[in-house]
Amino acid sequence: MTIRVGVAGYGNLGASVAALVRAQPDMELVGVFSRRSNLTIDVPVFPADEAAAHADEIDVMFLCLGSATDIPEQAPDFARHFTTVDTYDNHHLIPAHRAAMDEAARAGGNLAVVATGWDPGLFSFNRVLANALFPEPKQHTFWGRGVSQGHSDAVRRIAGVRRAAQYTIPNTEAIAAAKRGEAGGLTGQQAHVRDVYVVADAADHERIEREIREMPEYFVGYEVHVTFVDEETLEAEHTGMPHGGHVITSGIVNDTRASIEFQLELERNPDFTAACQVAYGRAAARLAAEGKTGALTVLEIPPYLLSPLGIDELVESFV
Amino acid sequence: MTIRVGVAGYGNLGASVAALVRAQPDMELVGVFSRRSNLTIDVPVFPADEAAAHADEIDVMFLCLGSATDIPEQAPDFARHFTTVDTYDNHHLIPAHRAAMDEAARAGGNLAVVATGWDPGLFSFNRVLANALFPEPKQHTFWGRGVSQGHSDAVRRIAGVRRAAQYTIPNTEAIAAAKRGEAGGLTGQQAHVRDVYVVADAADHERIEREIREMPEYFVGYEVHVTFVDEETLEAEHTGMPHGGHVITSGIVNDTRASIEFQLELERNPDFTAACQVAYGRAAARLAAEGKTGALTVLEIPPYLLSPLGIDELVESFV
Repeated sequence: MTIRVGVAGYGNLGASVAALVRAQPDMELVGVFSRRSNLTIDVPVFPADEAAAHADEIDVMFLCLGSATDIPEQAPDFARHFTTVDTYDNHHLIPAHRAAMDEAARAGGNLAVVATGWDPGLFSFNRVLANALFPEPKQHTFWGRGVSQGHSDAVRRIAGVRRAAQYTIPNTEAIAAAKRGEAGGLTGQQAHVRDVYVVADAADHERIEREIREMPEYFVGYEVHVTFVDEETLEAEHTGMPHGGHVITSGIVNDTRASIEFQLELERNPDFTAACQVAYGRAAARLAAEGKTGALTVLEIPPYLLSPLGIDELVESFV
Repeated sequence: MTIRVGVAGYGNLGASVAALVRAQPDMELVGVFSRRSNLTIDVPVFPADEAAAHADEIDVMFLCLGSATDIPEQAPDFARHFTTVDTYDNHHLIPAHRAAMDEAARAGGNLAVVATGWDPGLFSFNRVLANALFPEPKQHTFWGRGVSQGHSDAVRRIAGVRRAAQYTIPNTEAIAAAKRGEAGGLTGQQAHVRDVYVVADAADHERIEREIREMPEYFVGYEVHVTFVDEETLEAEHTGMPHGGHVITSGIVNDTRASIEFQLELERNPDFTAACQVAYGRAAARLAAEGKTGALTVLEIPPYLLSPLGIDELVESFV
């Protein structure tokens, strides 16, 4: 089975997905769907608003769109016409996104795999897995140090912001406490600092800083540092996209303790997010071919469907 | 749904499973099935060879039997009568075990979840997951320092061995190389030392040591140290059951590197193996209730089925 792939959106994530699809043994890139008319890349580019006309040529559409506004506005319409895989990352609103995608996908007889990537995504199912093993688990997720695409994107959408980078930095005392099983009721807000670098006209600084600090879901409740820098400083010091994190779970089974740690160290966040999205695209194509419809999260997908290898070879080589 | 549970075998693993089942919100322990007639525990004990008579009272039978001989000899017969979950851990023979259990389970209209635990088990699906993310992954599994139940059990079955403990110890140079992405073609045999402590009569030492070193799958190909100790030394120094390990995967996505590490630190191996087996028992009961039959590995089971929580609550709380 060759999986015929479309990529909707051609920012950092879309470009990385398009490149990675071409390294897969079982995928073929049909084209990129973009609102931009000036893309000069070596695959066909189609206008995003004419995507539906290509529904018969594409098995999986990777939605490489921003979570702040593009996914909520555009993703359900894609799901009515295509099997989709997205990386929607606004954790608190994922249940609503899942419901909207479930309705749209069912209406079109399609499958929508939602909130892939690494968090949400790989971290999500490690949290569920590790929690299921202990009667009273203690679990903490730490992010960074790294740039959050979602948060940087959200800042860039504020009027007057020309460029921005947002670093998530774990609180080192909090990590140490979690490893000792003593992090207690520590919240994500207490465990991390959000460090924002912004390029904007001086006249807008006060308003922009206030809008950042007051942005619900993304910044409210966190220790937030906002630094305004000039274009050259941002270009020189804040254009890399490293990221990573830990999910640490500790618990008692009968009378003895065990700890589980899942850790990622990523040189470039969008490349690894793309790797997760592409693997779940393979699962989406297989499940759609079996007639599965509606929205699915990573929690509902068996791991073997992510691999280009068959189950017998996987059992032989990896179990 | 309350899951009615039986436990077949009452060694370290069976005792731990029986205790842990009673800490689950959705499970009820019906009884232990054992060949021993002298068990005095506070749950009903039934003779193992009369288990089939209790098929209607039990939703999931946890097979807490040794992998060296008990599982191959007894597990298929259980699968003809019960939905089963085992922790068969002889990696190279898992495909054959899976085939035997698939045939037996289908004949009985049952489901058999095979080779759960942490390795095989959690490590297996982390290997498959991490491998699926990179076009050319480099992956290494390290075990220990810890006691391997399977290897200790195999040594104890040698004639003349009164007691035995086998420690698996990772080669520290090999771990460092894997983290640098330079462990190349390193095999499991090169990455670990097997350290065995045995209580036996002096007249048997030479033969026992030879039988250990010549045991296929378990010891052939490894650096093996065999030390004969007296009963008191083994009791004082080698009765703990710590274990753990790492699955380390590194790869390039487009032009950037990422690494994934899954790590376990376990105070007592059978307690954590029991935790994995019990969680997969929950999945087995749910899949069997849907009418699924045959053998399944952990690779084929979606993570949400391991949790006592429902999918909506999991998405809301953990994605």
